[in-house]
Amino acid sequence: MKDYVFGVDLGGTTVKMGLFSTSGELLENWEIPTVTENDGERILPDIAESIKAKMSEKGFMPEQILGVGIGVPGPVDKDGVVHRAVNLGWGQFNVARQLSELTGLTAKAGNDANVAALGEMWKGGGQGYQSLVAVTLGTGIGGGIIIDGKLLSGTTGAGGEIGHIHIEDDEEEACGCGNFGCLEEYASATGIVRMANRILERTTGDSVLRGEELSAKAVFDAVKEGDAVAILIAQEFGEILGKGLAMIATVINPEVFVIGGGVSKAGEILFEYICPAFEKYVFHGCKETKFTLATLGNDAGIYGAAKLVMEE
Amino acid sequence: MKDYVFGVDLGGTTVKMGLFSTSGELLENWEIPTVTENDGERILPDIAESIKAKMSEKGFMPEQILGVGIGVPGPVDKDGVVHRAVNLGWGQFNVARQLSELTGLTAKAGNDANVAALGEMWKGGGQGYQSLVAVTLGTGIGGGIIIDGKLLSGTTGAGGEIGHIHIEDDEEEACGCGNFGCLEEYASATGIVRMANRILERTTGDSVLRGEELSAKAVFDAVKEGDAVAILIAQEFGEILGKGLAMIATVINPEVFVIGGGVSKAGEILFEYICPAFEKYVFHGCKETKFTLATLGNDAGIYGAAKLVMEE
Repeated sequence: MKDYVFGVDLGGTTVKMGLFSTSGELLENWEIPTVTENDGERILPDIAESIKAKMSEKGFMPEQILGVGIGVPGPVDKDGVVHRAVNLGWGQFNVARQLSELTGLTAKAGNDANVAALGEMWKGGGQGYQSLVAVTLGTGIGGGIIIDGKLLSGTTGAGGEIGHIHIEDDEEEACGCGNFGCLEEYASATGIVRMANRILERTTGDSVLRGEELSAKAVFDAVKEGDAVAILIAQEFGEILGKGLAMIATVINPEVFVIGGGVSKAGEILFEYICPAFEKYVFHGCKETKFTLATLGNDAGIYGAAKLVMEE
Repeated sequence: MKDYVFGVDLGGTTVKMGLFSTSGELLENWEIPTVTENDGERILPDIAESIKAKMSEKGFMPEQILGVGIGVPGPVDKDGVVHRAVNLGWGQFNVARQLSELTGLTAKAGNDANVAALGEMWKGGGQGYQSLVAVTLGTGIGGGIIIDGKLLSGTTGAGGEIGHIHIEDDEEEACGCGNFGCLEEYASATGIVRMANRILERTTGDSVLRGEELSAKAVFDAVKEGDAVAILIAQEFGEILGKGLAMIATVINPEVFVIGGGVSKAGEILFEYICPAFEKYVFHGCKETKFTLATLGNDAGIYGAAKLVMEE
């Protein structure tokens, strides 16, 4: 009986690991450090070691394990091949195959943002939906697209890179990707701070934000207190993100957007700013698209990685 | 043995019908008029009648027919339910089920632009690809998205409505859909004429286009002759369409864009104007996306409708 499955969320500094029952219960989770030296050659062996140690601690036989899924911070195509993960020092190779050889278990790999989307669909804010776009508003903007229950990985593993859709023609500062005017230059946590600084410069009104250490949290805390300048910032954030999500909805017509990442801690108030712009720009056939908050936080990756193994 | 399949492309004035071998050979095609009176209540019975007549003419038994596929000019979800087709007078009902009851055959239904994309993948410009976006530059802009060989219908049948992604913030003329600044206001056949008129007004240089009856064809014919104003129009067309397709590629990372519709008769020269803008705006992981021309013309719909029946 295949009763258990491992979910691995591989980050630049730590590897989050989870042991799940195949019914979706998180039985145990732990972390190991990510050793990126020598082009990250220790990363997969370390993960395999940790899985084997857990199996022997629990007295599990390989026959009891459905497999191991892993989310990787870089483009991964549907065959499990990573096409470069700069934070790990990795070039191009088949992660799924290598992890399978090292563990003796079935293994699957996906991009971390895509895998997190699968986690939110399985046990988080996207539960009950079959077609969703997960939007992670963190340092950058990550995206994961699920259509009819299946991950859209993209031809070169770059599916769902929604932080880099072009949204503003007149931007003069480059995005980390090298382009100008990407969505994440405005609507990520860092993008909000960048926009806030611009708005604070061009306005003169009193604001609790002046002189304070700026953060996305500080902005939305001020919005909740009715700070007029903060509200202006939130409106510009909502206008740009709503417009971007409207384009995405017009192309793929999902059931729901699941909004996560640090910025989403501001809560439902985000939708007051995103949704009016979304409705203004979206094609009328997609106006009913729903919005909800992600609920798994940092665990979305391990849930999704475990779910990846259960696909097909 | 299921040797044959019918493909039906339902338009506002005529119904195109095709009899195919299941290996994909078009054996015969014909047309019947679309009778839209009384909310289009005759349309499906007329189609069923025509199929039965063809079967009896050929001496086919129902056991020899794999089924009938139909492309409908309106949003159709993956269960075969149309959500309103204004040109036909149709409201919401299950087209696939009704056509199946009328013919006694397995039936499937899809949106016409989506179905045409399937046709181009099967036997047209998209042959050999599994993930593509078909872009039909006609009176409007239609889109059809195929991911890993499967149509992306969308939650409410509005998947692939790429003509209505928001592309320009400062547009004052409304699109047919009611929004302002949709892609098809610039890059469809009518959009090109609209843009051409604006550019002819704001420039003074000599051009063969002045005083002539404007059309997308006239514009690209003039481009081929080196007409400077026509080249300006083509550049603006390429900038806007390239930008729109870059957004789409950044979201779904397809293998190829298959460009069809009346405007595509201009040929490969279109790519000289679309591709530089595409490369400027697209996420670097999607820069290798290919561009090709559609090859099936008006037959894409019947091919795709036949292929729809063969899915799964």
